[in-house]
Amino acid sequence: MIDFNYYAPTEVVFGKESEAQVAQMVKKYGGSKVLVHYGGKSAQKSGLLDKVCNLLKAEGIQYVTLGGVVPNPRLSKVHEGIDLCRKEGVNFILAIGGGSVIDSSKAIAYGVGYDGDVWDFYTRKAVPKSSVPLGSVLTIPAAGSEMSASSVISNEDGGIKLGYNDNLCRPKFAIMNPERTYTLPKWQTAAGVADIMMHIMERYFSHDTDMDVSDNLAESLLRTVKEAVFPVLKNPEDYRYRAQIMWAGSLAHNDLAGCGRVGDWATHQIEHELSGMFDVTHGAGLAAIWPSWARYVMKEDVSRFVRFAVNVMGVANDFTDPEGTAIKGVETMERFYHAIGMPINIHELIGREITDDEIKEMARKCTRNYTITQGNFKVLKAEDIEEIYRMAR
Amino acid sequence: MIDFNYYAPTEVVFGKESEAQVAQMVKKYGGSKVLVHYGGKSAQKSGLLDKVCNLLKAEGIQYVTLGGVVPNPRLSKVHEGIDLCRKEGVNFILAIGGGSVIDSSKAIAYGVGYDGDVWDFYTRKAVPKSSVPLGSVLTIPAAGSEMSASSVISNEDGGIKLGYNDNLCRPKFAIMNPERTYTLPKWQTAAGVADIMMHIMERYFSHDTDMDVSDNLAESLLRTVKEAVFPVLKNPEDYRYRAQIMWAGSLAHNDLAGCGRVGDWATHQIEHELSGMFDVTHGAGLAAIWPSWARYVMKEDVSRFVRFAVNVMGVANDFTDPEGTAIKGVETMERFYHAIGMPINIHELIGREITDDEIKEMARKCTRNYTITQGNFKVLKAEDIEEIYRMAR
Repeated sequence: MIDFNYYAPTEVVFGKESEAQVAQMVKKYGGSKVLVHYGGKSAQKSGLLDKVCNLLKAEGIQYVTLGGVVPNPRLSKVHEGIDLCRKEGVNFILAIGGGSVIDSSKAIAYGVGYDGDVWDFYTRKAVPKSSVPLGSVLTIPAAGSEMSASSVISNEDGGIKLGYNDNLCRPKFAIMNPERTYTLPKWQTAAGVADIMMHIMERYFSHDTDMDVSDNLAESLLRTVKEAVFPVLKNPEDYRYRAQIMWAGSLAHNDLAGCGRVGDWATHQIEHELSGMFDVTHGAGLAAIWPSWARYVMKEDVSRFVRFAVNVMGVANDFTDPEGTAIKGVETMERFYHAIGMPINIHELIGREITDDEIKEMARKCTRNYTITQGNFKVLKAEDIEEIYRMAR
Repeated sequence: MIDFNYYAPTEVVFGKESEAQVAQMVKKYGGSKVLVHYGGKSAQKSGLLDKVCNLLKAEGIQYVTLGGVVPNPRLSKVHEGIDLCRKEGVNFILAIGGGSVIDSSKAIAYGVGYDGDVWDFYTRKAVPKSSVPLGSVLTIPAAGSEMSASSVISNEDGGIKLGYNDNLCRPKFAIMNPERTYTLPKWQTAAGVADIMMHIMERYFSHDTDMDVSDNLAESLLRTVKEAVFPVLKNPEDYRYRAQIMWAGSLAHNDLAGCGRVGDWATHQIEHELSGMFDVTHGAGLAAIWPSWARYVMKEDVSRFVRFAVNVMGVANDFTDPEGTAIKGVETMERFYHAIGMPINIHELIGREITDDEIKEMARKCTRNYTITQGNFKVLKAEDIEEIYRMAR
C-alpha cells in the first residue's frame, strides 16, 4: 500500500424528503446569487426544476437558470455558463441532473475567476486557483461527480474529451432522492450501474494489493450494486434498490475504494476516445471495452483477476487453474453486462465494426491524452491500445 | 432504510511520511496560534511531540503545549485547556494522541467561546454555537474521534461520563502514520480493536435492515479488522495490518457504516457507567458487556444475529435452527475476544464480581443519561440494564 490522502467533504442529504432542504443548503454554503444549471427536458417535465426554483425564491435567494447540458458535456456550454455567471455576479452553482451537468458546473466554477480559456485546465496548461462553490440535486446515479474531484468535458473542436481532477471543485453538498431516479430508462439505469462498477474496478485492478480495507470495501460495493440492479430493472420504483445504487454511486467515486493504491483508469481513457468520436453513453462504452482490456492485461497479475472472479463475480475457484478461473470471471462479467442490456464490444455498442483508421485515430488521441494515467495495471502504448480496440471491435 | 445525512469532511493524511505535513495542514486550516494537546509520556518519549513542535516552529507557527490527558478524559483538564486557550489567544487545537486527547480537544474547542461551563453541552443544558478548529496526529486507533462528531468526557464530580455529538467539532484533518502505533501494548491494541468493531456493531444491530450498502460495508470492515488483529499481536511492527486497523478505525466511526438507519448504542452506554465507576479501558469494557447484551436482546430480531454469525463470524448457517446459529455467533465472538486477550464479562475485567448495589447504581445513572439512545434494537429500562449487568457480572 502507498501513502494516501482522503478528502470527501461533501455533505450528503439523502432520502425522500431531501430536496426540501435545497434552499437551506445553498444558504449554509454562502449562496445568495445562484446559477441553477440543468440538462434537458426531464428536469422541467418532472417538476424538479420548478420545485427547486420555488424553494430558492421562498428563501429569498436570487437565481438565474441555464439548461441544455448534454451527455458528454460540451465546452461551448461551459463558456456560456461562465459568461452568464460573470454577468449576473453568481456566487454559487446548483447543478440539477447527473454527471454531465455536475461536470459542466465544475468547469464553469473553475472558469469564472480565470482570465484565459477554462480548457487550459483540462489540457494541463494552467492550474485553477479558485472555484465558485457548488452543490447538486442528483437525478442520475452514475458518474459519482456529486462527491468527486473530477470533471470531464468534451471539446467539439477536434472531438477531444478530457478530464481534470482537483479537490477545489468537490461539491459542498449533494441532495439525493432515490425517487427522482424512478423515471430513468432501463438503458440509462444499466449504463449508470456499469459506470459505477467501473469506478470501483479502475481502483481495484492495481498492483498495490496489500490494502485490505480498500479491497474489501470495493468488493462489497461491487456485489451490492450488482445485486441491486436486477430488482430495479424489473420494478423501476423499487425504492430500496434505487437507493443502494444511488448511494453506492457516490461512494464508488469519492475515493473511498482507492485509498492506499494507484488505480488503473485505462478503460476510462480508452472509452473517452470512443465517446469523443461516436458520442456514445459513457457507461455502455465502458462495458464494451472492459472485457477486452481485461483479457489483454490479465497476465500482469492473474491472482487479482482470480480474486475478482471469486469475490465479486461468485465464480468457484479452481485452485489448479488460476488462468481458467480468471477468464471465467471476465466471462461472468460479460454475461452480467448482457443480462442488464449492456454491450460487451464495440459493434454491439454502435451497430457496426470500427475501421482500422478509426482504431488508429483513437489510439493516437488516447496516447497523447493528458487525462489520468495510461494504465497502471499495465502501461499501454499506442499499439497496445490499438490491439484492445481491435479485440473489442 | 431511513433518510440520512452524511458529512465526514476531515482531510485524512495517511502513511509513513504523513507527520511531515503537520505544519502545512495547520496553516491550511487557519491555525497561527496553536494549542498542542497531548496525553502522557509516550508522545514525549517517542519524540513525536518534539517533532511536531519543531515542524510548527520551522513554519513560524506559534504554539503552547498542554499534556496530561488521561484515558476517560477529565472535565477538570478540559477547563484547564479552555483557560489556557483564552489566555493565549489560541485559534487552532492540535491533538496528539488517541480518542481521549481528541475528545478532550473537542470539549476545549466548544468551551473557548462559551460563557458558561462546557459541561452544559454534555448535559444538554445548552448547545454550542462555535468551536475552535482542530486537527489531530493520531497515535491510537480505537475511538475514531479523528473523523467523528463525538466527544465523551468524564466529570470527576459524581463519576459521570457523558458524550455529546455535533458536526461543529469534526476535525479539519487527521494525520495517521501506522508506524506510530508500533509501540502500543497488546492490551491497548486489542482494546482498540474491540472499540472499533463495536462502533460498527452499534450501527449494524438495527431494525432498519434494508440498507444493503451500509450492511455490506459494515460486515466488510468487521471482517477486515477481525483478521488484521492477529498478525499485529504477533508482530507489533507489521505495517500492513497496523494500517488496516488504523484506517478501519476511522471509517468505523465517521458514520459510513450507519447511513440509512438508527444505531443501537446501548452497549456503549452500559459500558460508560462501568468506566465512570471503575475507570476501566473503554474497549475492554465493551467486550465485557456485549455478549450479555447480545443474549438479552437477541429475540428482538434473531435474523440479524444469524446474519452477523454467518457473514461476520464465519459460523456455518444451520437453516433449521436460527437461534442456534445466532448463539454460535455470540460464542464465536467470545472466543475471538479471549483470543485477543479481552474479557467477556465484568469479573474478568475488574478482577471481582460487581455487587448488587453497584449494579443498581450504574443502571440508575445509565437511565437518566443524556447520551445517545437507551437502545434502539431493544429499548432498555433500568431493570433491563440491571439484568444485563447481572448476566455480565
